[in-house]
Amino acid sequence: MGNIRLEQLREEMRKRGIDIYVVPSSDFHESEYVGEYFRAREFLTGFTGSAGTAVVTRDKAGLWTDGRYFIQAAAQLAGSGFDLYRMGEEGVPAIPDFLKAELPEGGVLGFDGRVVSGSLAETFQKAADDRHGSLYVTEDLTDRIWTDRPAIACTPLWILTEEYSGESAVSRLGRIRERMAEEKADVHILSSLCDIAWILNLRADDIEHVPVFLSFLFIFKEKAVLFVQPDAVGDEAAAYLKNCGVEVDSYWNVYDAASRLSENTSVLMNRKMVNYRLISSLSKRVKIIDREDPSELMKAVKNETELRNTRQAHLKDGVAMTKFMYWLKTNVGRIPMDEYTVGCYLDGLRREQEHFLDLSFEDICAYGPNAAMMHYAATADQKASVQPEGMLLVDSGGHYLEGTTDITRTFILGPVTPEMKRHFTAVVRCNLALANLRFLYGCGGISMDVVCREPLWELGLDYKCGTGHGVGHILNVHEGPNGFRYRVVPERKDSGVLEAGMITTDEPGVYLEGEYGIRIENELICVKDEKNEYGQFMRFEPITWCPIDLDGIEPELMNEKEKQWLNEYHAMVRENISPYLTEEERDWLKVYTREIV
Amino acid sequence: MGNIRLEQLREEMRKRGIDIYVVPSSDFHESEYVGEYFRAREFLTGFTGSAGTAVVTRDKAGLWTDGRYFIQAAAQLAGSGFDLYRMGEEGVPAIPDFLKAELPEGGVLGFDGRVVSGSLAETFQKAADDRHGSLYVTEDLTDRIWTDRPAIACTPLWILTEEYSGESAVSRLGRIRERMAEEKADVHILSSLCDIAWILNLRADDIEHVPVFLSFLFIFKEKAVLFVQPDAVGDEAAAYLKNCGVEVDSYWNVYDAASRLSENTSVLMNRKMVNYRLISSLSKRVKIIDREDPSELMKAVKNETELRNTRQAHLKDGVAMTKFMYWLKTNVGRIPMDEYTVGCYLDGLRREQEHFLDLSFEDICAYGPNAAMMHYAATADQKASVQPEGMLLVDSGGHYLEGTTDITRTFILGPVTPEMKRHFTAVVRCNLALANLRFLYGCGGISMDVVCREPLWELGLDYKCGTGHGVGHILNVHEGPNGFRYRVVPERKDSGVLEAGMITTDEPGVYLEGEYGIRIENELICVKDEKNEYGQFMRFEPITWCPIDLDGIEPELMNEKEKQWLNEYHAMVRENISPYLTEEERDWLKVYTREIV
Repeated sequence: MGNIRLEQLREEMRKRGIDIYVVPSSDFHESEYVGEYFRAREFLTGFTGSAGTAVVTRDKAGLWTDGRYFIQAAAQLAGSGFDLYRMGEEGVPAIPDFLKAELPEGGVLGFDGRVVSGSLAETFQKAADDRHGSLYVTEDLTDRIWTDRPAIACTPLWILTEEYSGESAVSRLGRIRERMAEEKADVHILSSLCDIAWILNLRADDIEHVPVFLSFLFIFKEKAVLFVQPDAVGDEAAAYLKNCGVEVDSYWNVYDAASRLSENTSVLMNRKMVNYRLISSLSKRVKIIDREDPSELMKAVKNETELRNTRQAHLKDGVAMTKFMYWLKTNVGRIPMDEYTVGCYLDGLRREQEHFLDLSFEDICAYGPNAAMMHYAATADQKASVQPEGMLLVDSGGHYLEGTTDITRTFILGPVTPEMKRHFTAVVRCNLALANLRFLYGCGGISMDVVCREPLWELGLDYKCGTGHGVGHILNVHEGPNGFRYRVVPERKDSGVLEAGMITTDEPGVYLEGEYGIRIENELICVKDEKNEYGQFMRFEPITWCPIDLDGIEPELMNEKEKQWLNEYHAMVRENISPYLTEEERDWLKVYTREIV
Repeated sequence: MGNIRLEQLREEMRKRGIDIYVVPSSDFHESEYVGEYFRAREFLTGFTGSAGTAVVTRDKAGLWTDGRYFIQAAAQLAGSGFDLYRMGEEGVPAIPDFLKAELPEGGVLGFDGRVVSGSLAETFQKAADDRHGSLYVTEDLTDRIWTDRPAIACTPLWILTEEYSGESAVSRLGRIRERMAEEKADVHILSSLCDIAWILNLRADDIEHVPVFLSFLFIFKEKAVLFVQPDAVGDEAAAYLKNCGVEVDSYWNVYDAASRLSENTSVLMNRKMVNYRLISSLSKRVKIIDREDPSELMKAVKNETELRNTRQAHLKDGVAMTKFMYWLKTNVGRIPMDEYTVGCYLDGLRREQEHFLDLSFEDICAYGPNAAMMHYAATADQKASVQPEGMLLVDSGGHYLEGTTDITRTFILGPVTPEMKRHFTAVVRCNLALANLRFLYGCGGISMDVVCREPLWELGLDYKCGTGHGVGHILNVHEGPNGFRYRVVPERKDSGVLEAGMITTDEPGVYLEGEYGIRIENELICVKDEKNEYGQFMRFEPITWCPIDLDGIEPELMNEKEKQWLNEYHAMVRENISPYLTEEERDWLKVYTREIV
């Protein structure tokens, strides 16, 4: 299918004299996940992963993506006319280098200026300059060929009350204005949808599973202006915003409003997060103070209300997951199951929980070799049957009024090979090593990641992704600046120092293409421990409660400390979850949280 | 004593209208260790550590140093009139912040422009600008008050032949010119003494224990000019340099030569390594390409000859250390010993080894509470008696024609407390965990450091320094860009990716002020291990051979893997060192390298 669209795109390129056209995965806000309207790269290539960039020249077409998606992308790109460029692998050029090599002398490089960040556009500009070429940025060419493109999302705003957010929008705006004063900024331009939703304590449904709304926010010293689709703002939201000192303007007026900022304005903004067209709309004489959005760190450090609530959300989520595990393990082989229906069953258990809002991302329910694809998603049409043998990987989560969850368990459904158990046990050891690390304040995830990978590296194995990511609070399930990764990947923004109150996932795995995948994921709150002459020690508080399948464990491959960690965790699961189970489930849970020796 | 000198300095400041004067620890080359002539900061403050900066205002005097020296500096500064500023501790201002706070409006900030790097001078300039002040950089004020200042060192150059260096100077100059071409540089200005010595395969003795010579090197496309003290260049060196295509000019002409570089020259150099006066001598229109010196990485990756030789040097060093350990442990309590004479005995054993050149740094031979000072040095006058109880820490090393060594052992001399054994065992576990880490290529020391600290962090302990440093080859025993440290400290330049052929120390420790200190240090060569679909795995090859004192080990505090690592290491020590021992020593070594269970 990709071939026809690719040829149509090339035809549009030819008409305009464009030599290379870049189609990223982004919306106008550098969002990780995007609404249907914005899935131009998927439309063009057939690759459905959340991260990837298509680059089309007159005779080449490439799709760049990262290690999480190598297996999936290779499968989905087959026959599309697009070659897969595995980012970070030896010999694979980065996109700017590819552009420099492929752009003819004096050539034209095109992209939609709204879906490329200011800082990325700079690297494109440099590549074009290198070839004495020029940019063409004023048009979304894919719009020309995408005849049945979905409408842009516009869902109603709702208010997350202070009972749930723990801090008013006025207070958050105040904290940001303090940072603006420190930076001597007249205005702060915000494009990040999660940051805007967090600051204003508003939510909506413009991106599947990410409860945000398309908008830009200009924060001035004395007022703020929210650029949002008018239809999204009901009477209640309008009154609320007015009360918070926030004026409302149309989403589509933002470029014009930017162009009207006076020449000597100091603008605090993050060039990596604001789109190229918006930046280009500013007067050339505006002074840009290029910083991380202050709200990024603020929202990552959860307040006491958010922490108390999120523990509550995880308890409910743990009940759903544990009931699911019981159902799965007692029924597999007895009733027909496939990846899709199993996922639906789990969704149903989550929906039964009080204050459930939505799934926090599309379930990954992957059986056998499908689990080797880190971000595989079964559909009603494409799914594998689930049998009483091998392993099923389930990565899922929910948004509740109290918070957001993200958990992965890999379940043993019947006979498994000794190698599977060795790998399963290694992954559990990885997970426990990180969860039980005590560390000095000042460490970022880059310093801790190896503690998690060690048991796999011993075996000559690895997983081609970070070990964990920050978790948004009823926002994107992935957020920065915290994470675990052993090398700095600047665009991931996950190498910040771990602060008390941050929540990060711990999700090591083994992925053997064509064979199986194993991942065990818990969420960890970073908390303060002892403070002494050496500094402030920190540790993690786990908040995810569901048994780690003991049928996959080989106790003799664990040392005493590791067994103790696992036993302690399982005792907590039993204590926390038992009260919410039926008697049958409770008896079963006792077995699956038993002490191993 | 410091008081009089401090008042004399303030008098010189007053005469010139200088409000604040900064005296760093540096020579004209940003060397870590400096010749006697350059120890102005020590002269002024009494603090003898290798790292520290004195800042004198009209009414305050401060000495900034890092965690390695907190205990020592506090002791040595007593009564000096200087307050200790513990760098990196909460609430302690960085020097530029202190300058901003203390410099009066329109004030004058002074320092000798030759002992401050270009990049550091920039931060001083900014601090002065902030107060609308100015710099005074043309004079070394300490020279005015230091009446018996030693002469500047000038020792003869000698040639390290290709048999020992493994690569000719012509080849090294060629590799650097390739990098210059990539950077489009016309000239590369080098100020780092170790880099110049490495490139030219020349050594001398201008800095105690660092066999280098005061010099600058200008590398042009077709020629090179070495600025060196004429008396240092004998006939052989002169002929050798000519043969390498290197012209010789006087050390004192370098500023003039810099000023004569034509305006449109592109200069590759490292602003952090070249002194402010030299940079100021360049025409303002010269284009500076500010990069790490290409030779820094080149010299850190040892070639096959250097690696083969350094293994040989470590074998000899291990024989000296093992003989020392035997002598120490069998004679303590029987014959009189003190820290100084014990160190001298060890030096004698090293000197007996073939091709011994010099100690690679001043021995640290520290008994009891003295060992809590990381860089303590006993002298003939100031020394503690060594008794048959507690612990003795010995950190020492040698330069041999084959390479440079650095080893620390802590010896149990008699009864020790259970806490000492707990801490000793933890330090050994730290050391072994890092030495036995298998990791994927791409890791820097920042990602591995925590693996080493984990056993101490578990106990709520830490050491206030990096875990290890790169080791120069018959150069400074400390070199970059490799090292182990859990946070990036830019001025340490030790956060580079570990490459095969790099040598790094692994030296965790416990330091309890007023009680004791424990450190165990081995050197590790980074080598390639298995390469597979996950990438290039790397591991470490230990090259340091001397027993880790089993009298300090509590086996029940180690897990099976840790005991296995220790037993494997001790088997290697026995195998490598036994052939060079007497029968008595050999029998003793069997006991001290026995398997623990």
